[in-house]
Order: sequence, then structure tokens, then C-alpha cells
Amino acid sequence: MPESPFLAACNGRKADHTPVWFMRQAGRYMKEYREIRKKASILDICHTPELACEVTLQPVNRFEIDAAILFADILLPFEPLGLGLSFPEGRGGGPVIDRPILVPADVDRLPDVSPGDMQYVLDAVSLIKKELAGRVPLIGFAGAPFTLASYAIEGGSSRSFIETKRFMYSTPEAWHSLLSTFAEMVGNYLVAQVEAGADALQLFDSWVGILSQHDYERFVAPHSKRAIEIAKSASVPVIHFGTNTRELLGSMAQAGGDVIGVDWRTPIDEAWKEFPERGVQGNLDPTALFAPQDELRAQVRDIMERVGGRAGHIFNLGHGVLPPTEPDALDRVIDYVREGA
Amino acid sequence: MPESPFLAACNGRKADHTPVWFMRQAGRYMKEYREIRKKASILDICHTPELACEVTLQPVNRFEIDAAILFADILLPFEPLGLGLSFPEGRGGGPVIDRPILVPADVDRLPDVSPGDMQYVLDAVSLIKKELAGRVPLIGFAGAPFTLASYAIEGGSSRSFIETKRFMYSTPEAWHSLLSTFAEMVGNYLVAQVEAGADALQLFDSWVGILSQHDYERFVAPHSKRAIEIAKSASVPVIHFGTNTRELLGSMAQAGGDVIGVDWRTPIDEAWKEFPERGVQGNLDPTALFAPQDELRAQVRDIMERVGGRAGHIFNLGHGVLPPTEPDALDRVIDYVREGA
Repeated sequence: MPESPFLAACNGRKADHTPVWFMRQAGRYMKEYREIRKKASILDICHTPELACEVTLQPVNRFEIDAAILFADILLPFEPLGLGLSFPEGRGGGPVIDRPILVPADVDRLPDVSPGDMQYVLDAVSLIKKELAGRVPLIGFAGAPFTLASYAIEGGSSRSFIETKRFMYSTPEAWHSLLSTFAEMVGNYLVAQVEAGADALQLFDSWVGILSQHDYERFVAPHSKRAIEIAKSASVPVIHFGTNTRELLGSMAQAGGDVIGVDWRTPIDEAWKEFPERGVQGNLDPTALFAPQDELRAQVRDIMERVGGRAGHIFNLGHGVLPPTEPDALDRVIDYVREGA
Repeated sequence: MPESPFLAACNGRKADHTPVWFMRQAGRYMKEYREIRKKASILDICHTPELACEVTLQPVNRFEIDAAILFADILLPFEPLGLGLSFPEGRGGGPVIDRPILVPADVDRLPDVSPGDMQYVLDAVSLIKKELAGRVPLIGFAGAPFTLASYAIEGGSSRSFIETKRFMYSTPEAWHSLLSTFAEMVGNYLVAQVEAGADALQLFDSWVGILSQHDYERFVAPHSKRAIEIAKSASVPVIHFGTNTRELLGSMAQAGGDVIGVDWRTPIDEAWKEFPERGVQGNLDPTALFAPQDELRAQVRDIMERVGGRAGHIFNLGHGVLPPTEPDALDRVIDYVREGA
């Protein structure tokens, strides 16, 4: 069987064509997904391997994409951690953590969580892998220690991350203890996903761009590094992703990852200069999918031209597919990438 | 009278000491402000020169700061524009635009707005200027065309700016017409503030960092440039500010501004390399004000060391003072800056 273009790019090798997948390619923008959500909550889907499998395969069946990504949520480990997790309707669908981490003692009280505590995720991975039957590789994933900590401390989404940084600056020992706990947990969880069948991994540090480089280096990098180090023991490629990371790209690459994910703010060739020895994933603006075809094609072309056919590029958005996106726009992007835009 | 350290720095001249002021230095974090808010809404304060004056002076009386900034809201021009503006309680206090711009025809329908339509702001400026009696200079301000357009189109705050970018990409003529209208309006409004007594101006392009550099250049820069060009006819210094602008700093400086405001993500000396011939304002992380004193001092010291006494630096936060901030933390920052941290 020929190597998949996605895995070739992950490994820095020239691929048959530039591989494409989309962060949040399974989600609300698809009618098939909304149908399932009528009868099952987000957590129901995550908890039920058959549903997680079905939702994971929806975009694989619909689009000519080069990878599947497990349907799950980065915050699922908060359930066995005893933090509580729900996605109430009518709050933009964002997560709510019922018992956030407020003081250092809350960190000490966290139970040990092992991958088996998310057995349903591992079962979903095995089932998806079987159903994919080798069509495309399957990406497993987890939240990075910082992004997990920000949710655990803020109790949900945040704009300013005041409580996260207050905790970080005021009680650095408890902070490092928390991130170290998360790093081990996440690393082991990623390894277990590979053992269950995942062909590659992505570490989502979505909100890390709220930090200065100095704070990233001091408070976060060692823990991301540890999580990736453990994950790499499973010998599959790891993609390391964040947004608003222009200043952090070099440090993130130092922390680890075979491929670094980049948002749309930085031209992809300029970003790549910060980690020339790794692969790059990105970086179309998700809102470009709302543009007329000419504009969309021009933006895809700009990325392709900046990459100039260099091996190690995975085409993706700079962040997840936005819920109001028209699925047809994804077809167009794939066509444009295939045609070299 | 000796030149104020703030104006000296604006003009690239060595000051007696590094000037300090804080974006949103008048606001909810001050008990004196919350007292006034018990009897007056945000719009009441803006509409009543005596109240706007009182609130503007609160931080000047409380802190050893080197500049006052007019209390107003960047969206006030939306009232005479007929877009409707309110700040409902219990939505995080964010603005709501009742009749957002949805289609190109909405742009054509916008009435001409002249500075006299915000006469109450100009009256506030004159009153503040009189009450300040030369203690410190007064900064007038306005929202930049892009940031105003984003509120006008989204109908309020946004995370993804989908509608803004959809409008920009899909109907570029109407977009340019809208931003051009805003540029003229904002430029004239800034000039009128100077005529009423403002000693310097700041153009807030707070959300412009959601754009790639290419989109900034195509869709925004000419209009920011025009607004600043008009403002500069009043012959006072202009500060040009945005957040998440690492990739845009050079383009923003090209568009104009004697001083470029920088958020905390970019080390100030690295940012300054992008516009060596201008001044720089910034760039302490607003969440550093929640840190213990040693950490806060270290972060102030880092900025002072990176600047290294170079003329043209105005110390400020990288974004506005956050509502839960303790006022004492601002005193400490001022002390640290005066002591050279």
C-alpha cells in the first residue's frame, strides 16, 4: 500500500499531492452532524463509540480529505478528574466546568487519571480504525497542558484568562504541579490512542497565544515538551498546534512536534522559517470559506505559492471550521489545493 | 512650563522620566467610578460633560500618571449614524448595535456625521482641559475604521468576525465605502477634539489583529492612513494602537502614527524594530497586575531593560485595565517605572 500523503507530509517526505484535512471537520456545519445532535448531546456522542465513529466518518465520506480525526473533546479527561464537564445549550455551546481549580489544594486533590478512564474514546478509535479500513489515516488528539489548565481554572472559555494567569503568577509551584499532572495524563492518553489504532496525533494548545514568549518558556514549554516526549514513545507523528502564536512558534517547535500548526495571521513561509526542520500545517483563514470563489481561490493559491511545493506541508485552516460554514466551500478548497490553486 | 514627559516621548524626545498612563485608566476597577455608575449609565456619563470630566479626572487625582484620557466610547458616533447603541447590563457590559450594517445598501443609507453631532464629547474635552489646568496633557481618541466597522457589522463584540470578513470579501466596494466614510468621520472627529483642547490623540484599532497582513494592507491600511492624515492636520501627536498585531506592526506604522501601541505578546524591543523611526507605547500584560509584587516588578523591569532608556517610550499596558484589577497595583507599576524597576 502506498504511503498516505498525510503521513508522508508528517514525515517530511514528498507526497503524491498536498494532503488536506480540516480542524473541526466533523461538526455543526454539517447537516449530517446536526441530525445526530438532535438525538444525542456532545457528551453522548463522545461517550458512545458507535456515534463517535459515525460522526468521525461523516466528513471522510463527504469530502476528499486525506485524514480522519477522532471526534472527541479535549476536556473529556475532566470527567475522571472530578472537575465536572457539561456543554449547556444556549451559551454558544461552550463548555462549563462545574468544579474549577481555584486554589493549590484543588491541584493536590486531583485523582490519578489513566487512559482507561476514557476507555470509550479508545474503543471509538478502534472502531473508527476498523471502519476506515485503510482509506485515510486516523488522527488522535488531546488538549495541551496549558489549554487544559486554562479551562480547569477559568471554569470555561475566557477572553482575558485573568484567573489562569493569576494562578500561574501567584502560585507557581501549584501551577507546575498541575501542568505536570496534565502532561503525564495527556502523554499517556495519546499513547493509548495510538495503541488503539491512531496513526498520528495532534496536541491542541489552542489558547497558548495569550502568553508572552517569556511566560510560555517559563510556565508552559517544559510541560508541553513532556507530553510530546511521552506521546512520541508511540512512534507516530505529532502535530503541535496553537493560535496567535507568532511569537511562540520557535519555542513550540523546541517543545516538540514533527509538524507545527500555524494560524492565518502569519504568512506560512514566514512561520516556517521559525522551525525549518519540521513540517508545517495550515493556514487558511477559516473566514475565507465565507468569501466568493475567486477570493477563496486566491487565498488558497497564496498559501500554495508560499510553500512552493516544499515537502512537509499539510493544508489545513488556521483554526477550526466555523459552524455557519457551507460544506461546499470545503470541497472548493480541496479542489483548489489539488489543482495547485 | 517644561514640556510634559508624555508629549516629549510622543515627539521622540528624551523625557525627565518615562511617562506612564493606562488604557482604560478610568473605569470599573475604581471604586470612585463604580459610585458614579450607580446613578448613571455608561452612555449617561458620555453624554454629560460634567460626568465625563469627573470620571476622566478620577485616575489623574488618584495616580501619578502622566496623561489623562477622555472618558468616552469609540462607538458614540453610531448614535448619529443611526445604528443604535446600548450597553445592556448582564452581558459582560459589551455594546449592542441595534441596527447593524448587513448589506451594502445599509452603507449607502448612512447619514453624514460631523463632529458637532458629538458636541457633548467636545464639551467634555473643553471642560476636562480647563479642570486639568495644565497638570497633565489630555489624550483624545477615536475608534479606527476597521474596529468601528467590525462592531457595526457584527452588531456587537465578536470572536471570529465572520460577518465582518464575509462583508469585506464579498462586497469589497461597499466595504471600502464604509471604511472610507468612517475614516473621514473619525479624522474630523479627532481634529475637533484637538480644537476643543486635546493635546494628543489615540486611534484604537483594537481588533485589527484578527486580520492577516495581506488583508490588512488591502482592506484596512488605506483607511487608517486617511483617518490619521486628517487627524495630523491638527498638529498633535497620534498614537496608533491595536492588539494581536505582531504581523501588522510595520504596516500600521506605514499607515501612520507618531507612536505605535503594542500588546504584551511581542517583546517591546522586537516590536520597536518594526518601526524604528516612531515612538512605542506599551506593553505590560494587563494580567501582570494580578501577580505578586516580585513578579510584577520583574515584568516592568524587563520592559524598562529592553527599552534601555531610548527616547520615545511611553509606558502603558498592552491592553486596557481589566475590571477586577486592584488600583494599588497601578501605583506599584508607576513606582517601578519611576525607579527604573
